[in-house]
Amino acid sequence: MEYKKELQRLIAEFKTNYLSSVSIDLVIFGFHDGQLKVLLLRWKGTDDWCLPGGRILHEENLDEAAYRSLRERTGLSEIFLQQFHTFGDVMRYKNFSKQETLLKLGLPDEAQRELVSRDVSVGYYALVEFAEVTPTPDFFTEECRWWDVDQIPLLLFDHNDMITIALKTLRRQLSYQPIGYKLLPEKFTMPDLQQLYETILGQELDRRNFQKRMLGYNILERLEERKFGGAHKAPYLYRFDKEKYEKALANESLFVG
Amino acid sequence: MEYKKELQRLIAEFKTNYLSSVSIDLVIFGFHDGQLKVLLLRWKGTDDWCLPGGRILHEENLDEAAYRSLRERTGLSEIFLQQFHTFGDVMRYKNFSKQETLLKLGLPDEAQRELVSRDVSVGYYALVEFAEVTPTPDFFTEECRWWDVDQIPLLLFDHNDMITIALKTLRRQLSYQPIGYKLLPEKFTMPDLQQLYETILGQELDRRNFQKRMLGYNILERLEERKFGGAHKAPYLYRFDKEKYEKALANESLFVG
Repeated sequence: MEYKKELQRLIAEFKTNYLSSVSIDLVIFGFHDGQLKVLLLRWKGTDDWCLPGGRILHEENLDEAAYRSLRERTGLSEIFLQQFHTFGDVMRYKNFSKQETLLKLGLPDEAQRELVSRDVSVGYYALVEFAEVTPTPDFFTEECRWWDVDQIPLLLFDHNDMITIALKTLRRQLSYQPIGYKLLPEKFTMPDLQQLYETILGQELDRRNFQKRMLGYNILERLEERKFGGAHKAPYLYRFDKEKYEKALANESLFVG
Repeated sequence: MEYKKELQRLIAEFKTNYLSSVSIDLVIFGFHDGQLKVLLLRWKGTDDWCLPGGRILHEENLDEAAYRSLRERTGLSEIFLQQFHTFGDVMRYKNFSKQETLLKLGLPDEAQRELVSRDVSVGYYALVEFAEVTPTPDFFTEECRWWDVDQIPLLLFDHNDMITIALKTLRRQLSYQPIGYKLLPEKFTMPDLQQLYETILGQELDRRNFQKRMLGYNILERLEERKFGGAHKAPYLYRFDKEKYEKALANESLFVG
């Protein structure tokens, strides 16, 4: 079979070219229509979903490997990508038994040993512009698509935990770093920004406090234009002052309560 | 030589018992006399210092491996230990050339290949009670002692970066989780607690705001006793309400500005 041959070639390549015992998993968040979404892959011939992942080449920095994997799955190159936690339990097959998983994946013995052997996996999360992504499956999977963050199915490995911790980290990050650049169109209204924050935090925020806090960060530029077409008084349009935004990202103390 | 024999035995053990390509490094913070300190090790026969580290057994969870290494270097078992970042650059020998480092360590060829081959290293930081630690060198080192955090020398590998990022994480953590339990004696005054925070943050804090904020967290219990002996009015003694403290640790949203 073609599949089996290609698989054997891949396994040989894995052994030669990549670090053993350590891998990468990616929680890719996209924002669309007031909903936070995560990109998932479905394994060939199964109904089982998992996060996109990757391995690290011998002469490749860890961060570079993460960017490469993200590029391969989304087609995007300029993205916000951040390490959030490394997962190293011996038993990372929480939701299904390891045996069951292996059977489902239908891998030959050698592939099982190599691909489902124990890895310590470094988790990264990315924030991407939903509309710019071209979801692309890899060799092991036949479908790659967005799932609403509150409708994630039971995933392979410990990938549900990974999403939970990535989301917790993202929420925490809102308190000490700005977020929104690349997730919103270039020009947006204060209600657009508030909706993004509310979606990520999973809770409603007070409109006046939110506006006061955001303007206090001094990273927004108010434009002369307003957004027309809504039922209410046309709201002002804003855009991020990229220089100040980058500075605030670096100097995170700005955002500590 | 005994050393060489033992080294060869260790290398064989490494290959058989531990995951390859992935290791652990520990930034162990202690607080003493208004000074934040870090535990460092000096390599045998050199003036070169580095962080304590360890490897992961095949059947050992990553966190367990970190706790085991910490126990081996400090003698402590109940400790606050937290993963903060994983370091995966190809070139993790920032301060000295790799060649220079290998020469200094005086390792035989095989040991060089095994011990100084590329590892992705998971960084953990610990907060320990200074007085309870018994600093203990490992096989490769002959001295283990505390260094003031602002007087760290140029370290082997990327260990200066590790301390910098651990410290940044610890400072950030102050804004969303309580700190102090295990770092202060059971009973302490508000100025003691403030000194701990100021030491970690590296800046002075306003006394009244600090007290208001700490009491607002609702994790402190004010005792009937006061601390006598100082030049000023005897200050109240406090202790952490352990149950509320643990709850605040878990429910970190309490601490987000």
